[in-house]
Amino acid sequence: MTGNRGFFAGRTIADLGRDLSAGLLSAADLVDHALDSITSLDRAFNAFVTVGADAARLAARQADAERAAGVHRGPLHGIPVAVKDIIDTAGMATRMGSAHFDGHIPGQDAACVRRLRDAGAIIVGKTTTHEFAYGPTGDRSRNGPSRNPHDPARMTGGSSGGSAAAVAAGMVPLAVGTDTGGSVRIPAALCGVVGFKPAHGAVPVDGVFPLASSLDHVGVLAGTAEDCGLAFGVLAGEARVPSPGDTVSPRVGWLATDSMALGDPAVGDLVRAAFPDSEEVALTGVAELYQTYAAIQGSEAYAVHADRVARSPQLFDPEVLERLHLAGAIPGWRYVRAVEARESFRRRAAALLDRYDLLALPTVAVVAPPVGARVLDIGGAQVPVRDALLSFTSPWNLAGLPALSVPVGTAGGLPVGAQLICRTGREETLFAYADRLRAALAGPRG
Amino acid sequence: MTGNRGFFAGRTIADLGRDLSAGLLSAADLVDHALDSITSLDRAFNAFVTVGADAARLAARQADAERAAGVHRGPLHGIPVAVKDIIDTAGMATRMGSAHFDGHIPGQDAACVRRLRDAGAIIVGKTTTHEFAYGPTGDRSRNGPSRNPHDPARMTGGSSGGSAAAVAAGMVPLAVGTDTGGSVRIPAALCGVVGFKPAHGAVPVDGVFPLASSLDHVGVLAGTAEDCGLAFGVLAGEARVPSPGDTVSPRVGWLATDSMALGDPAVGDLVRAAFPDSEEVALTGVAELYQTYAAIQGSEAYAVHADRVARSPQLFDPEVLERLHLAGAIPGWRYVRAVEARESFRRRAAALLDRYDLLALPTVAVVAPPVGARVLDIGGAQVPVRDALLSFTSPWNLAGLPALSVPVGTAGGLPVGAQLICRTGREETLFAYADRLRAALAGPRG
Repeated sequence: MTGNRGFFAGRTIADLGRDLSAGLLSAADLVDHALDSITSLDRAFNAFVTVGADAARLAARQADAERAAGVHRGPLHGIPVAVKDIIDTAGMATRMGSAHFDGHIPGQDAACVRRLRDAGAIIVGKTTTHEFAYGPTGDRSRNGPSRNPHDPARMTGGSSGGSAAAVAAGMVPLAVGTDTGGSVRIPAALCGVVGFKPAHGAVPVDGVFPLASSLDHVGVLAGTAEDCGLAFGVLAGEARVPSPGDTVSPRVGWLATDSMALGDPAVGDLVRAAFPDSEEVALTGVAELYQTYAAIQGSEAYAVHADRVARSPQLFDPEVLERLHLAGAIPGWRYVRAVEARESFRRRAAALLDRYDLLALPTVAVVAPPVGARVLDIGGAQVPVRDALLSFTSPWNLAGLPALSVPVGTAGGLPVGAQLICRTGREETLFAYADRLRAALAGPRG
Repeated sequence: MTGNRGFFAGRTIADLGRDLSAGLLSAADLVDHALDSITSLDRAFNAFVTVGADAARLAARQADAERAAGVHRGPLHGIPVAVKDIIDTAGMATRMGSAHFDGHIPGQDAACVRRLRDAGAIIVGKTTTHEFAYGPTGDRSRNGPSRNPHDPARMTGGSSGGSAAAVAAGMVPLAVGTDTGGSVRIPAALCGVVGFKPAHGAVPVDGVFPLASSLDHVGVLAGTAEDCGLAFGVLAGEARVPSPGDTVSPRVGWLATDSMALGDPAVGDLVRAAFPDSEEVALTGVAELYQTYAAIQGSEAYAVHADRVARSPQLFDPEVLERLHLAGAIPGWRYVRAVEARESFRRRAAALLDRYDLLALPTVAVVAPPVGARVLDIGGAQVPVRDALLSFTSPWNLAGLPALSVPVGTAGGLPVGAQLICRTGREETLFAYADRLRAALAGPRG
């Protein structure tokens, strides 16, 4: 981590909640800390596109007044939160990272934002997104690339890059993102925070600009898995499948993929070593799964943007436009076959989760590449950056299963994340295991 | 109707069942009548591609022996049935109307055939299908076009053309077909029999060669709607939604479509006159619905055939191959939008069926065109035959609702059908109303 870190670095939502309850801190204090941290740090990282200082201060005073009056809205009451800029916030600019939405101010909150506010959380600002969330690199946005707090010359990953940088730099304790192929987990891994993509449909996407509806998920980024769990509880509301509680010694299956060659061996080895007691299981066909993902994502994304591409192509980032043109040319029959292949993978994944409580694999096959990089040299092979970023995360968007990235160390000074998958309803085991893993790895090293 | 008619002309399954129960006829007699009718008539109509005389005679003897032993399997016990040649029949050639399946003999019955046999029905043969069911004209098949019993120079319509001709000519009292865009209802209307497409998913499609999975339905053709209902009861098995019984005076909504210009006014007027007491409601966007249908059908069909097109294109009928090439070029995003448009139409249709028990419109906008015709001159406009055939039936494949075609008279000596739509679970009302309508129309005329 370069330079200073913000107030929230190393402070969990659970800790902050205790301090708020004890009167050691107020929501107004927390909002001031967030705004001060953003002011001092964000020039380097470009995590925020919009900061709503006045509205946040007002909401903080209301939260404090409620608490003083004995009203307690739960674990997010008084907690500052950053929200990705493709998620509608009433009265606060929401630009989708695109010139198409310059000056756009939604009249209504997205459903997930409404749930956060109802739980007493305070929206402090909107975070940089790859344009229309259409890219895992996080470096093509109307407001410029977000930058990795571990090295601002490196990409955050994306598309929820600003949300990851905001949490990693300690500017906020919690940020909301979206994840269509890995857009929460990838930047979480590259920036060294925890990122959680819930099961498909567990959190409503109303008011979230679509990338590819059948793959879109709202997710969260925080310093710990426990904090992700607190936020997930609020975001999922009553739709949350009751969890039977933590399984203290879960059976972990290590997914040995047939495309591990894609990645940096130092990353693969580091993540593998974090699961010494896991049983190895083969996950074959990763390259085909990625093609399946690309056919579905591309066709659905172009369906969203076709009219915009026809009407005002010049308003798109050129790379995003080029990718949209390719997406628009995917034949329908390939989409149909991809949907069939997705069904078949769902059955495979469900069968694996009959045998294991958790599945483990790297989140991303490489550490954060330089901002703007599009090809990586890995052992002499030229690997497209997007493929290297998405290969291990996108299968779990196809499967629609809960998936979490947790930091497990660094390679060459840059964060590396392990990815854990569970069955819907087993999130408690996932969260608790991830935090025990982090503590165990941090123990001897840090 | 030209020439002689077969034994089953004017005889319903209900009548035959009474004669079988009374011992006036045996299943062996019925099979002999079917085989004799086929022998004497089918040279003109080409309804059958395969006749399984020996197996049918054997099954008839077993059915008679069971009945003699007091076992009664229900309304189809001992009834001869013809099955479309894209539906698997164990030990009996099933060629999909295609040179790709020359010599193909399935090892297993399709689920719907198994249900028929379990109910005591006797499969007498396989009926001509448009190649791979990929065409509503019924005149492109490995074994030549099926021909309309009302005029063998006219097409039967398709793709279940042989099934319609077999029933219309009285060769069998019941035939099974499939319906992806109208392939049961269109030939039923053009050949002057009743054709019923159940709700999507009500009858299993296992063992039926797919055309477009999300639109494919197994349906039935018979002389009356009551007979269709008897067969539907057997085919749907336990999955059938219990019907509250017949609503004697159903509210009927007449669907005034914005594309009626597509069709022959004589046909439209004849069908409209059959519903003097109906209330008129607008069904707008029929042309867009047809595009929606075409995008889904084409993409799903090409997904089925892509490998066959690549490997052995020369085995396809040239017209079917040309249509497949066009289908393969439909972009994925158009498919995605079509699936969204289908959802929206389903909601519109459901809202209409909140107001009306039944919806009525023509089955087909024209009478049977000549075999091989591809463009019709309607009032000076050149209308593609396929569009004229499919426009009014395909919306109900999108909606997945029960839909039935019932004869309501003739125009220029050729049959005209009215189409009736109901909500799932209201099939009894549909069947009873259709037969009352037929009786009322037949009464004063003939």
